[in-house]
Amino acid sequence: MARMEQAAGGHMPGKIPETMIAIGIAEPGEADVLREEERPVPRPGRDQVLIRTAYAGVNRPDILQRKGLYPPPEGASDIPGLEVAGKIVAIGDGVASSLLGTQVCALLGGGGYAQYCLANANHCLQVPDGLAPELAAAFPETLFTVWHNVFGRGWARQGETLLVHGGTSGIGTMAIKLAKLFDLTVIVTCGTDEKCAAARAIGADHAINYKTADFVEEVKRITGGAGVNLVLDMVAGDYTQRNLDCLAEDGRLVTIAVLGGAKATINMAKLMVRRQTITGSTLRSRPDSFKALLAAEIEQNLWPFVEEGRLTPELDRIFPLGEAAAAHRRMEGGEHIGKIVLQVPHG
Amino acid sequence: MARMEQAAGGHMPGKIPETMIAIGIAEPGEADVLREEERPVPRPGRDQVLIRTAYAGVNRPDILQRKGLYPPPEGASDIPGLEVAGKIVAIGDGVASSLLGTQVCALLGGGGYAQYCLANANHCLQVPDGLAPELAAAFPETLFTVWHNVFGRGWARQGETLLVHGGTSGIGTMAIKLAKLFDLTVIVTCGTDEKCAAARAIGADHAINYKTADFVEEVKRITGGAGVNLVLDMVAGDYTQRNLDCLAEDGRLVTIAVLGGAKATINMAKLMVRRQTITGSTLRSRPDSFKALLAAEIEQNLWPFVEEGRLTPELDRIFPLGEAAAAHRRMEGGEHIGKIVLQVPHG
Repeated sequence: MARMEQAAGGHMPGKIPETMIAIGIAEPGEADVLREEERPVPRPGRDQVLIRTAYAGVNRPDILQRKGLYPPPEGASDIPGLEVAGKIVAIGDGVASSLLGTQVCALLGGGGYAQYCLANANHCLQVPDGLAPELAAAFPETLFTVWHNVFGRGWARQGETLLVHGGTSGIGTMAIKLAKLFDLTVIVTCGTDEKCAAARAIGADHAINYKTADFVEEVKRITGGAGVNLVLDMVAGDYTQRNLDCLAEDGRLVTIAVLGGAKATINMAKLMVRRQTITGSTLRSRPDSFKALLAAEIEQNLWPFVEEGRLTPELDRIFPLGEAAAAHRRMEGGEHIGKIVLQVPHG
Repeated sequence: MARMEQAAGGHMPGKIPETMIAIGIAEPGEADVLREEERPVPRPGRDQVLIRTAYAGVNRPDILQRKGLYPPPEGASDIPGLEVAGKIVAIGDGVASSLLGTQVCALLGGGGYAQYCLANANHCLQVPDGLAPELAAAFPETLFTVWHNVFGRGWARQGETLLVHGGTSGIGTMAIKLAKLFDLTVIVTCGTDEKCAAARAIGADHAINYKTADFVEEVKRITGGAGVNLVLDMVAGDYTQRNLDCLAEDGRLVTIAVLGGAKATINMAKLMVRRQTITGSTLRSRPDSFKALLAAEIEQNLWPFVEEGRLTPELDRIFPLGEAAAAHRRMEGGEHIGKIVLQVPHG
């Protein structure tokens, strides 16, 4: 049974409504299938909180979901949206009542494009004073993803060199920022000179325009032939062997998306002789307990930087929730630098 | 400057001769290019010992080297042979004189097919009383390789399931034995029902005849659909994706040879969703310091089992050194079960 906020002391003057505005997917397709719908406000179950959404982050998996290529995991909302910032206005069983009224950002299994959404209480991070909610909403997905894949699966260590594709994407910009906080050298690839300049301004040590240069050759040149210790890749396909060709001995390739296709042909003799490692992961399908573990790691290792103002996500543009289709088009157009977020209206 | 044994107290009655019998490679080719030659007895350099070889192990890289496909690393002898057992009869600078006269087995960069050979002092393991020298000679290459790749790079843990191809090979039989010592479940593949029976007799929990069954389907059946945690592979080529298809979530594929070809086509989306890891390594080209680290790990973690008689290599057959060609033909014929060793005559 959920306790609604007004029953627990009334942190908010207003009642929680029965229904809300959300963005549904009318049918699989292009951006214009996104449409405003009236939906029931969900009720928090055990270990869950209800968040009154202020801002929702837009992520590439939302686009795949819209196209019907990435169905929500069992038990998740069919409404898109993997991250939000807002206020906890109701809690389910097993959640400390002290959380009521707290400003948080949260990683979601879905449902972020809505006035209210559910999150596991352990997947929320408290928004520090001075962090704007639109920035907070842009944090969870890239922070959890980059932290786990670069520092967890990828074993990044101080002094190492990281190559990241899509240097101005949400993931790319967060990878640059985390890499610099932990004293890595970071090389990115981007599709235009303007984006290369933007990536450098955000902190990249080197930015390669992959349309005018061979990134494998450029990485060799930049690293004096040694190669990088780690590649964070979202392309796969024929990038896979090229990424391996960028790796130093004992280097790791971590793949988090296959925008260039799933099929990859690789040289296992080279992999063996150079002791390379290929791995990868997806976040959304992992169990709640794993996401809670990541949230705890992030709270301990990264949140102090956020509280000090030393780590903020790179914000591209804010769209009103009702213009979610335009937000998707902007991401699909690839002109954005950093995160796109949706502002969620109330009343 | 090397101190010869007689100068250090005379543990051996005989003088160390100036020349020795060794097996050279007349030219790249089939087994009959191996021929007895007279060579100078090498002198131990800094950190090296001279071993009077009693037995030398035969390994697949020796065959590749004979064919001209695997040149010895810089500084290594051109004589084949990556492991021996025998007595330390001379030491170079920096080596404790207490080692003189010790019975050891040693991992070599090359030169094992000879009456005398050089080893780094830190790559030797003392042969315990009760371990026959022909067994000791069969230990280093497979012990170092399996230990590092299964327990080091492959992170094998108690209770996990390991799939090993070539279950009756030197590597395969050692993998079975180490897996059972550390409470893994071990599945092997072999090419005949007789070899499957032999692998089971050595300790394999399951043995799949890959010629009469699809090993991917069999692994699924044996593991109730879960897959194995680790594959130790020496085939690569089209086995690579099939190995990945055998892996459980978070499973690791460790490749140590590419007998089936270096080129592999893999599915990066599946790898990512199932959080699989591909890695591999070669041993011979690693620096002395790394091999010394492995020897120290093995001395600490595995040698107690050897001293207790709980771990011995599986011995296939002993050939006289002069019949090295026949030993190679036996390995190339693939009829052996366990290790092939050469007995080295003296005087």
